[in-house]
Amino acid sequence: MNARITSLSNPTVKAVRALHMRKERDETGLFVAEGLKNVIEGIDTGHAPKILMHGPDAAAHPMMKKAVQATLAAGGQVIEVTHDILAKVSRRENPQAVVGVFPQAFIDLKDVKPGAAECVVALHRVRDPGNLGTIIRTADSAGCGALVLVGECCDPYSVEAVRATMGSIFAVPLARATEAEFAAWRAGWTGSVVGTLLTAEVDHRKAAYRKPALILMGNEQQGLTPDLAALCDVNVKIPMRGRADSLNLSVATGIMIYAATG
Amino acid sequence: MNARITSLSNPTVKAVRALHMRKERDETGLFVAEGLKNVIEGIDTGHAPKILMHGPDAAAHPMMKKAVQATLAAGGQVIEVTHDILAKVSRRENPQAVVGVFPQAFIDLKDVKPGAAECVVALHRVRDPGNLGTIIRTADSAGCGALVLVGECCDPYSVEAVRATMGSIFAVPLARATEAEFAAWRAGWTGSVVGTLLTAEVDHRKAAYRKPALILMGNEQQGLTPDLAALCDVNVKIPMRGRADSLNLSVATGIMIYAATG
Repeated sequence: MNARITSLSNPTVKAVRALHMRKERDETGLFVAEGLKNVIEGIDTGHAPKILMHGPDAAAHPMMKKAVQATLAAGGQVIEVTHDILAKVSRRENPQAVVGVFPQAFIDLKDVKPGAAECVVALHRVRDPGNLGTIIRTADSAGCGALVLVGECCDPYSVEAVRATMGSIFAVPLARATEAEFAAWRAGWTGSVVGTLLTAEVDHRKAAYRKPALILMGNEQQGLTPDLAALCDVNVKIPMRGRADSLNLSVATGIMIYAATG
Repeated sequence: MNARITSLSNPTVKAVRALHMRKERDETGLFVAEGLKNVIEGIDTGHAPKILMHGPDAAAHPMMKKAVQATLAAGGQVIEVTHDILAKVSRRENPQAVVGVFPQAFIDLKDVKPGAAECVVALHRVRDPGNLGTIIRTADSAGCGALVLVGECCDPYSVEAVRATMGSIFAVPLARATEAEFAAWRAGWTGSVVGTLLTAEVDHRKAAYRKPALILMGNEQQGLTPDLAALCDVNVKIPMRGRADSLNLSVATGIMIYAATG
């Protein structure tokens, strides 16, 4: 019933490997999630794989049946491959035994609705995929309603970012916006819009986080730009008491998200 | 006055490259900090390089004079090397133009004194050097008095960890302890000892953080072990409201440190 591929030059293998490139991800609207746990997390949140690729030994795993059935039921392909192919697809010597190719799931900015969530996060020009993935994991953990990527950001669907999400890539609605689109959309926001700025004077714990709070973070190099800082109801700072200039972006965002929720 | 090396087989170059290996770092008590900014940070906090290695163009940088003088005044070597050597030393195609070799600065557990600091951090069996480096950066940012590594941890002086500290490797006193040493030392702690545990019932914001607070975190895979959790005055949880099982360790530690300080 299922295909078996042993050649690295097989077109499907080539297509999956090509998803390491952003251009290819952008054009196909697909991305790779590695590991059976993450594939199952995708399925459990309503995302069926287009391609389910697994090594020779994976078929015996009790959760594989569920993954195979969900893939086939949605019209996807199930393919057994060699360990070498998995290593090439993952660019790792010790690859996960299962890889899923999923459709990306960006939503429109106008469809970002906090609902019952206390917080939505917006990141401006985030650069590091590890930071972005870790922030998606934190946003999921805190029950944030969505994450908005403002301006030119790194790709949340890169292999590195997806790895850092630890499965949360499927749990948090993601939207994209230009700076102008974000400014227009923010005008209709009903809760507090809080920016984090090293030069701000308000302690991050002293600000009012009127629900739903919109937390806006600048990027790793420059922090929040003046234009974006001016869009906020209040700018706050996380106190810096030592010699370090700044916190890691994913740590700072985690501190802000948990200051705004609960 | 200063030496110039162009050969990869030069013994000094070999010795610096070998510091990528933990065994070599443990035996020599040395580590590598990359980048002029970090080297200057080391010097400004009282740590002179044993070896200051720089590329052909770095000599022109206005801060280099200070770095060279501090190195020579402390009896260290200043060596000009080729771009290729810097790339090999850093294992990067685009290496920093300056590399410093510094003595490690572990302190004895009995010398960990919080002083005016509101918080000291202890990590049990931390595994990921990126997480450890990021936590050191956060501990510096929050003005923590020290960081204690309990049990078998990854090396804070690995190149990857030092990179993630962004210079804070020089700012935060580091100590090491076995589980038994930690238990004995903790008995004399005068403030609150707070552990973070996914199964705890106290919200992390509701606990009393009597100063100086000692924050204890488990590792990436298992969290806090029952033995270590039992050493705490209180175990707290950071609320998990989504699908994720846990937060990234460096994010969770950042949230705890800032809950305990200020």
